[in-house]
Amino acid sequence: MATIHPVLLCGGSGTRLWPLSRKSYPKQFAALLGEESLFQASARRLSGALFAAPVVVTADAFRFIAAEQLDETGIMPSALLIEPEGRDTAAAILAATLQVAHDDSRALILVAPSDHVIPDAQGFRDTVAAAAPTAEARRIVTFGITPDRPETGYGYLELAAPPSGETPEPLPLVAFVEKPNAERAKAMLADGRHLWNGGLFLFRADVMIDAARRHAPDLLTAVEAALGGAKRDLGFCRLDAVAWAKAPAISIDYAIMEKADNLSVMPYTGRWSDLGDWASVWRETQEDGSATSGATTAIDCEGTLLRSEAPGQRIVGIGLQDIVAVAMPDAVLVAHKDRAQDVKAAVAALKQEGARQAETFPRDHRPWGWFESLAMGDRFQVKRIVVHPGAALSLQSHHHRSEHWIVVQGTARVTVNDDVRLVTENQSIYIPLGAKHRMENPGKLPMVLIEVQTGPYLGEDDIVRYEDVYART
Amino acid sequence: MATIHPVLLCGGSGTRLWPLSRKSYPKQFAALLGEESLFQASARRLSGALFAAPVVVTADAFRFIAAEQLDETGIMPSALLIEPEGRDTAAAILAATLQVAHDDSRALILVAPSDHVIPDAQGFRDTVAAAAPTAEARRIVTFGITPDRPETGYGYLELAAPPSGETPEPLPLVAFVEKPNAERAKAMLADGRHLWNGGLFLFRADVMIDAARRHAPDLLTAVEAALGGAKRDLGFCRLDAVAWAKAPAISIDYAIMEKADNLSVMPYTGRWSDLGDWASVWRETQEDGSATSGATTAIDCEGTLLRSEAPGQRIVGIGLQDIVAVAMPDAVLVAHKDRAQDVKAAVAALKQEGARQAETFPRDHRPWGWFESLAMGDRFQVKRIVVHPGAALSLQSHHHRSEHWIVVQGTARVTVNDDVRLVTENQSIYIPLGAKHRMENPGKLPMVLIEVQTGPYLGEDDIVRYEDVYART
Repeated sequence: MATIHPVLLCGGSGTRLWPLSRKSYPKQFAALLGEESLFQASARRLSGALFAAPVVVTADAFRFIAAEQLDETGIMPSALLIEPEGRDTAAAILAATLQVAHDDSRALILVAPSDHVIPDAQGFRDTVAAAAPTAEARRIVTFGITPDRPETGYGYLELAAPPSGETPEPLPLVAFVEKPNAERAKAMLADGRHLWNGGLFLFRADVMIDAARRHAPDLLTAVEAALGGAKRDLGFCRLDAVAWAKAPAISIDYAIMEKADNLSVMPYTGRWSDLGDWASVWRETQEDGSATSGATTAIDCEGTLLRSEAPGQRIVGIGLQDIVAVAMPDAVLVAHKDRAQDVKAAVAALKQEGARQAETFPRDHRPWGWFESLAMGDRFQVKRIVVHPGAALSLQSHHHRSEHWIVVQGTARVTVNDDVRLVTENQSIYIPLGAKHRMENPGKLPMVLIEVQTGPYLGEDDIVRYEDVYART
Repeated sequence: MATIHPVLLCGGSGTRLWPLSRKSYPKQFAALLGEESLFQASARRLSGALFAAPVVVTADAFRFIAAEQLDETGIMPSALLIEPEGRDTAAAILAATLQVAHDDSRALILVAPSDHVIPDAQGFRDTVAAAAPTAEARRIVTFGITPDRPETGYGYLELAAPPSGETPEPLPLVAFVEKPNAERAKAMLADGRHLWNGGLFLFRADVMIDAARRHAPDLLTAVEAALGGAKRDLGFCRLDAVAWAKAPAISIDYAIMEKADNLSVMPYTGRWSDLGDWASVWRETQEDGSATSGATTAIDCEGTLLRSEAPGQRIVGIGLQDIVAVAMPDAVLVAHKDRAQDVKAAVAALKQEGARQAETFPRDHRPWGWFESLAMGDRFQVKRIVVHPGAALSLQSHHHRSEHWIVVQGTARVTVNDDVRLVTENQSIYIPLGAKHRMENPGKLPMVLIEVQTGPYLGEDDIVRYEDVYART
């Protein structure tokens, strides 16, 4: 059995699962089902004997989140490619393919979104393994999910006849079918010859590169240049921005798949969901028609999703029918379940209004850890700051504020002008206005610090950076 | 025109407006409509040329809230009576009546709940003034609200004939009618002879005391003893608990009104609401069918109430029909509007589960000001503490925690063992474990302080009080 190289795409940032999914921290990194994030579950699903180390393709803004979450799973990536900007799936998949081909031009590659749910990981792996010989024989294999409802929100893959037998084999693709209307969706569900397009692909690297050379030569040229000019940066591979900008923004389906003549469809009969909106989250998590998560109290609720996404927050639903309600401390969504697709438009409206909650979370992830504002007042702000072991903030100063730091967990090494000292649990230190200062965590445990800022202006942009290990100066 | 003594009842704690109204801070003290609390609006409505200083009757738990809110309106109470425990309206009204009668046995008294809404304050005052001669003539006047819908949630006052004329006069009461079913409510709305019982009463003190002596002698005896044994305490008049416990817990309607033969009904034709549940809050605040308050975005919502009750929190509603959604950082209610009455039962269920949000707010009001927990972690807690000008916390110590205090607004006088010093904005001080300490605000502005506690146990009950100006040692 050949080794398969997983390519995990995690650079997107959908808003249909707002307020849990926001531009600054999209759904693939959220623990929507269970303890792990969807990205982590995807990485784990594509690990084990069958698989090589994954190639992860992500956006600049998410590079530290992706690296940190992957680190938590214990899975080491073979490469973390950073897209300078989003150019849709074709460019991302080609970049990863070229990366893998560099070491083995005939390597088998499995491309997978990182925000889908496939509960039966072993069943899915078995299906991938069964499709491998077809991919070895120079076919591009796409995976077709057996539909269980006349869904109008997905594209379909048409076959000549319904798949049959206990152990399905890849079948030639007849045609891609765009998202259908309700009537067409019912007909397709009934005929058994149409499967959902799961956005999963298995192919040999050289086969995909040949297809790109034939069907999307400009795209291939741009991506080759972007990878050729890539810079290694703290374990990331940062694609060249100038070359990358020349890559057309187009999906892999439009750029290559719909033009290629060597496509096969591997049927997958297990459960699958793209968790594309709150209605599908309801569908995947409901029991007896109700889905709850977190501290919730549901009284006489039917067809309803109630989620409390923050410790210390509780949501109570009474007499609700087909409602989704998702609560966070700074933002609450209450929508009719049939209107779940409209969340995206609502978030766009929030953004227009300048509402902070449209795109950002209270918790702000940085390369060294994260911080959140606990209280804002007239001339003061209180923050909780968490610094990873071994990490360091930049050496910096402020023009408009002083800071009091109280370490509440772990030990900090603190620089204030020429003075460097250790500050540990239950100790505090004062950073006068204008002083050059730095906070580091030299220890083996996370360091947690409460920062009290005082001054007339407390914006994040009042910062002068002198040195930064994350190249942000 | 005789002066009228308002009696404001604000000792109750309903839960039908949860999460905004909770046992620790019930709805009369919340700014449900506009900037002022309902209690403040009630006090202001019953002030001016017609009225003497009000007597306020409240519960021990709310005494500082009531005093503080009244202080903000600039209205000085003639007395603040504290009920040692809730004994329903009859005991509370008699206590206030006896208090007023002490100086003027024939004084006119207007009893009013403090959680109702009467938008036309001057119209209401004119109605009270018009009823005064009838009360002077030894009648007990109750106020009847002209119904505008067949409400099944209120009691009714039956008249012999519909009130008529531009300027109504008090009419003899025929009978009290209990909360009707829907059919009966429709018939009463149609006949025009039935008005809503607004729970407002105007009477001469001696007339009420005579009625109590005749119809509820045990009650009168208990209340006389409770007032006789009352203790003055920081401007409050604390009724004697032992005597008070002997007062039957009974409403004024059952104890006296339904037995008295000298009742008149003064019609009030203006808008009135008891804001008894979220459906009635919707009714009072809706425009074109929708009611919103705070940072809200309502898309295609009909008959819906959306309220965000905290700065920094936003609620988004999409495609909702007849839903009430009320969001706070720690608790969110989403209910069908027809089920608004069931909120009370839901809160009772929360209490059973031990959910903190059932009864208490994140913000905890104390005689000296208030505090809230900003963050809780393993072995640490961060609090914001606000101390009123001139106020002081008790002299205290803790067995299990140290505290770091950073003053962010105003100036604190801090005692740590034998050391007393001023700590002002942008200064900090450390309170070691076991040290006797006290925080005071000697200034003219509120003092705001961030407290960072560290230690293995951070419960409010780890406190040894040595001295307390609020008699809590």
